[in-house]
Amino acid sequence: MRDESCIFCKIANGEIPSATVYEDEDFRVILDLGPASKGHALILPKNHFKDVCGLDQETAGKVLTLGAKIGTAMKKSLGCTGFNLVQNNGESAGQTVFHFHMHVIPRYEGGPAMVGWTPGKADPDELAATAEQIKGAL
Amino acid sequence: MRDESCIFCKIANGEIPSATVYEDEDFRVILDLGPASKGHALILPKNHFKDVCGLDQETAGKVLTLGAKIGTAMKKSLGCTGFNLVQNNGESAGQTVFHFHMHVIPRYEGGPAMVGWTPGKADPDELAATAEQIKGAL
Repeated sequence: MRDESCIFCKIANGEIPSATVYEDEDFRVILDLGPASKGHALILPKNHFKDVCGLDQETAGKVLTLGAKIGTAMKKSLGCTGFNLVQNNGESAGQTVFHFHMHVIPRYEGGPAMVGWTPGKADPDELAATAEQIKGAL
Repeated sequence: MRDESCIFCKIANGEIPSATVYEDEDFRVILDLGPASKGHALILPKNHFKDVCGLDQETAGKVLTLGAKIGTAMKKSLGCTGFNLVQNNGESAGQTVFHFHMHVIPRYEGGPAMVGWTPGKADPDELAATAEQIKGAL
């Protein structure tokens, strides 16, 4: 299903041009216009899903497997030595376009730590209590 | 398949205790000991995969679907309004344990932008050339 007002639906389906890395029946992989690093790509399903919560398991499997394939090709062709897969859900998580997309971000030796965080400290009792909270909502 | 020297194999299979949020036949979801935010969880397959490149499509589908399930439970129980799924491959990408794991990071309104990057600028010709480079290695 498509959403006629969604820009990523238009890009994924080839109505708006993009630097396309890969295309098949279900997906288009394009380069991000505001790359975190050289080669930063986005996996876009051709069907419209708002975020990861709408994705069926079959499409989900294809997305993650495609992420591995694209990341491996980046290592072969761009000289990066690793890659991050990042997928944001919700405005507070940095999602700006509400069409599911997975970032594939090549990482280079000595490059900046653009995806990462400062590990916090957690008390074991606090962790156990938080785990119970989440469990209760599953 | 397990790797006897791998700490995440031991945790996933319950030989080392953890703050467990969820467990089934294939996965254990635990809370990170150095959380980026309250509730930061890790999805660990019970079988050993070094990174995303070794994952079969069926397991991949289950991982991403489980990420959606855990993230949804976090929103219900912890008051976060979004979540990031982050998966690192290779030392340069911040991978520290070489057993595939997916981070589920709750994000709170007004919380710090702990997963994100400064968008770079890319020239359209440069993007097209980079896309061709990656395509050639697929």
